[in-house]
Amino acid sequence: MIMAHYKVNLKDILFILNHQLNYGELCALPRYKGLNAKVLDMTVSEAATFAKGVVDPLQEIGETSGVTFNNGNVSCPDEFKDAYHRYAESGWIAAARDPEYGGQGFPHMMRIVVNDLMYGACQAFNMAPSLTHGAAHLIETFATDDLKKQFVPRCYNGDWTGTMCLTEADAGSNLANTQTTAYRKDDHFKIKGTKTFISWGDHDLTENIIHLILARIDGAPAGVKGISLFIVPKKRVNDDGTPGPGNDVVCSNIEKKLGLHGSPTCTLDFGSKDDCIGYLCGKENMGLAHMFQMMNSARINTGVSGMSIASTAYLNALAYTKSRVQGKDISGTKSGDVPIINHPDIRRMLLWMKAAVDGMRSMIYTGAFWSDLAGELEDGDEKNHYKHLVDFITPIIKAFCSDMGFKVCETAIQCLGGYGYCKDFPLEQYLRDVKIMSLYEGTNGIQSIDLMGRKMAIAGGAPFRAFTQEIEIFCKKNRSHPTLCKSIQSLENTFNAVFRTVLKMNELRKTDPLLWGANTYPALLCFGELIMAWRLLDLAIIAERLAEKMPKNNFYTGKILQATWYTDITLPHTQARIHSCLKNGREVSEMPENAF
Amino acid sequence: MIMAHYKVNLKDILFILNHQLNYGELCALPRYKGLNAKVLDMTVSEAATFAKGVVDPLQEIGETSGVTFNNGNVSCPDEFKDAYHRYAESGWIAAARDPEYGGQGFPHMMRIVVNDLMYGACQAFNMAPSLTHGAAHLIETFATDDLKKQFVPRCYNGDWTGTMCLTEADAGSNLANTQTTAYRKDDHFKIKGTKTFISWGDHDLTENIIHLILARIDGAPAGVKGISLFIVPKKRVNDDGTPGPGNDVVCSNIEKKLGLHGSPTCTLDFGSKDDCIGYLCGKENMGLAHMFQMMNSARINTGVSGMSIASTAYLNALAYTKSRVQGKDISGTKSGDVPIINHPDIRRMLLWMKAAVDGMRSMIYTGAFWSDLAGELEDGDEKNHYKHLVDFITPIIKAFCSDMGFKVCETAIQCLGGYGYCKDFPLEQYLRDVKIMSLYEGTNGIQSIDLMGRKMAIAGGAPFRAFTQEIEIFCKKNRSHPTLCKSIQSLENTFNAVFRTVLKMNELRKTDPLLWGANTYPALLCFGELIMAWRLLDLAIIAERLAEKMPKNNFYTGKILQATWYTDITLPHTQARIHSCLKNGREVSEMPENAF
Repeated sequence: MIMAHYKVNLKDILFILNHQLNYGELCALPRYKGLNAKVLDMTVSEAATFAKGVVDPLQEIGETSGVTFNNGNVSCPDEFKDAYHRYAESGWIAAARDPEYGGQGFPHMMRIVVNDLMYGACQAFNMAPSLTHGAAHLIETFATDDLKKQFVPRCYNGDWTGTMCLTEADAGSNLANTQTTAYRKDDHFKIKGTKTFISWGDHDLTENIIHLILARIDGAPAGVKGISLFIVPKKRVNDDGTPGPGNDVVCSNIEKKLGLHGSPTCTLDFGSKDDCIGYLCGKENMGLAHMFQMMNSARINTGVSGMSIASTAYLNALAYTKSRVQGKDISGTKSGDVPIINHPDIRRMLLWMKAAVDGMRSMIYTGAFWSDLAGELEDGDEKNHYKHLVDFITPIIKAFCSDMGFKVCETAIQCLGGYGYCKDFPLEQYLRDVKIMSLYEGTNGIQSIDLMGRKMAIAGGAPFRAFTQEIEIFCKKNRSHPTLCKSIQSLENTFNAVFRTVLKMNELRKTDPLLWGANTYPALLCFGELIMAWRLLDLAIIAERLAEKMPKNNFYTGKILQATWYTDITLPHTQARIHSCLKNGREVSEMPENAF
Repeated sequence: MIMAHYKVNLKDILFILNHQLNYGELCALPRYKGLNAKVLDMTVSEAATFAKGVVDPLQEIGETSGVTFNNGNVSCPDEFKDAYHRYAESGWIAAARDPEYGGQGFPHMMRIVVNDLMYGACQAFNMAPSLTHGAAHLIETFATDDLKKQFVPRCYNGDWTGTMCLTEADAGSNLANTQTTAYRKDDHFKIKGTKTFISWGDHDLTENIIHLILARIDGAPAGVKGISLFIVPKKRVNDDGTPGPGNDVVCSNIEKKLGLHGSPTCTLDFGSKDDCIGYLCGKENMGLAHMFQMMNSARINTGVSGMSIASTAYLNALAYTKSRVQGKDISGTKSGDVPIINHPDIRRMLLWMKAAVDGMRSMIYTGAFWSDLAGELEDGDEKNHYKHLVDFITPIIKAFCSDMGFKVCETAIQCLGGYGYCKDFPLEQYLRDVKIMSLYEGTNGIQSIDLMGRKMAIAGGAPFRAFTQEIEIFCKKNRSHPTLCKSIQSLENTFNAVFRTVLKMNELRKTDPLLWGANTYPALLCFGELIMAWRLLDLAIIAERLAEKMPKNNFYTGKILQATWYTDITLPHTQARIHSCLKNGREVSEMPENAF
């Protein structure tokens, strides 16, 4: 029997969308004419229904049946195939893409909300449509019209899927080492090389798979400036658009992994028989720059996954603590044995998880909202402001939410005691599934280097200035708030300390890069914690306002209590991290290698 | 092919034993006459050799072959049976027990050192001899001479194994609910009830299994004061000492778990045919008090497991970072691509893991050393001092080292990037195996309640006073240390703040138990971090002294750098936790249940 494990709190989701972000206002943008908040809400609600009804059962099926690998072919459970087609038919793959190629024309942020719901129900499955969207969107953005017509609609409508082929055995974090080569041949290229760790690189969900692959055109410059992007279908496409003969792309291995057993992670050999055709996507030697569109989107989605798996894990733990009766009420106010949600240490874990999930969700949705403004506002300062914000928050969303997501799953297990360790409950699977988030799409260490290095340097520091502006406006506006002022002043003080840390680290990057590099990850955590406190306090302020008309409303009370508590117990740790970033101890750099 | 994964740094282990603890001095105690430091060192070294040669291969065999459950019988891989007999023959089961019943007569702490080495090689396997020791030691301590002679030597010599049967479906954390019943029948009892989560509850390693089980004698008082301890063999014992017919103990289920696939976790039905005989062990209605000997030992062993699995994980990650070449040296001093141990963020993780492992090991060995003094000194104040210290540190070792152990395994995975997620490397298994440590033998939340509740109340606070004395002596002696004074002053300041926190929480326990209960776990972490800093700084002081004669010795340099760095980056977090313990925010208690 397949158990239903997916749990979602739509009220929390819609509170952020409507009350914190007012996402209906996006409908004033020209691209979203014809939409309104009510339509958006209905879409969110439909996605939740789909996630519960269709995607949720796949979590257990993927875990127990897994994927099979035989003779170079990967097979998936039938339920995955059926679900993929229903997912496509319902329009979820390209919800935010333009109707021209088959999209639904929703705001960009709707893609994030849909992914939140679907990843939270089954991460292993939802990677397939999400990668397909990203691959096809790359083609839509950079390829010629002919290639667009050939590939994009068939991906958006679910006939074909897409992948993202970057990693090679010796070029994982360091793409400059990419060895896969493209040889010119008439109007196309012959591709030769091996890619590893390709999620959904082979399967039988659909009749064709479109690989977006980084390769070096024979004779191109060394390093990242000689990498180009290619479209490589698994099967060649006939003139009538149907899939033709194989294109010499062979799956030679699938990984055995800690989790995500429902998602095949493939090694793909391209052109081992010298018969693999690829089509240039975008400009020669601009492949990495083009690919960043998909990588950034994948990084944000990785943060979304961390958050949404955590959300499901939290809600499962919550349900357990309400039903599991054991022990007495320590305060003596309730008689007999009580549900364990009454025990303070259990409540401490629940409140921490609640705040973690709500704060991460607000952080991510805020970033997604910014991405709509960055994409759809008219050119100008305001558009640039939001572009900078999106640039800035992307590595934070990726790294912070993946690490927090893991901690939430760990804490959720803790609420179940020994049962958390058993496969009778879904939590151990969430823990295993979510662990990948800190590793793929660039490890969290690499995200921290991106944030404190590349992102701090863009346009003379414009992304950090844009972020500073947002925080300062919030603190200035609310620092005299009648009930929350203390927490907001604490946020302001902590931000000021983080600001000084950034100035110092920007210097260090030039004068002592080893010391700088030893502190990028703690610095990223500081930003993550700041943003969490900011977003939670913002939700609390809104809840306070609404509570004036509905006092003693427990939903609002929860928003307020989670914010003050999280701020109080977290920002002192942020200050502790700042302390370690600012200190000049060079132990990490000075450790002799054989002293480890 | 079975891969060798076990790695151990004996130099680190012996440095703590010889230079920090001077464990050879124990040989001045009457019980250890005839032993000396050299014999102890040789024994440690032999245990490491055994762990590498015999136990290490079981880690992969247990994971891949697992245990099988058929018709109420659990079977283990043949390699486990062979290893168990070799383990017993080598005398490891009862290394620290008296020769009277077949022990080797080594100091109590040798059991901890041996477990460190064996758990680090294969946790799933070493639980069997460790539980056997604990069960037989209970019999040796509390049972009649006849029962001792019948059971103890056969357990210590490896003929039979032992278990610890506490948990029932509705009595896990709350043993007061124990339902298993013992009915008087002539000179023995008939046992009836079901126990769950029994590690190594059934198997075919040996011809008999001796269960130590908590049950309520028919008519006994309610609650924990009506629980007695019984010896229940799987097979009855014939007059000639050989195993006879079955004793109506049936394994009805084994758990499917996140990890520890080599260790069967059993549901045992006792007396379902009314034919299960048990023998009272110790006094009627004193079962829980008696069982605490085994529980305390199991709690310490759980901390040992957390630490030693972390140690193996760290050393595996270290080896990987030295061999994996990727990326350039950020400081530009080395040319070409370099091993990733050169990257600062990798070094940050390695140094943190090194300090975590060394600090935990020193904490645990120090506690083990105290337990020898507590056990073997003549009656008096000094003996009581060490008894109090052991009481105090037990829940800290259990909870802090299990949670830290998990974090170390998580961090070790991070050093490998995507490969850390794959079963080709041993790290994902360590992560899964080590997770149980925070859950069994009393969840970490329960440990924190034990520490801040029961332990603070023993003998008017004597355990905490004994601990305070140890820290104060250390700080007073070293606060003017020429190079480490700053770190030691920081330890002293932090301890003083923790001291104030304890006073406040002792008050709160009476006046506001809900607020108290929301902070016991953060308070336990404060103690864990303090002890880590204390032990690491002590190692650093010793290393400084030795380095005077051997300057530029990298081993000593490592001890010093890990101590100052860990102290610098950790104690500010301890202060942050103190802040949260001292604040009066009652959010955790006040959250309405339906606001979660």
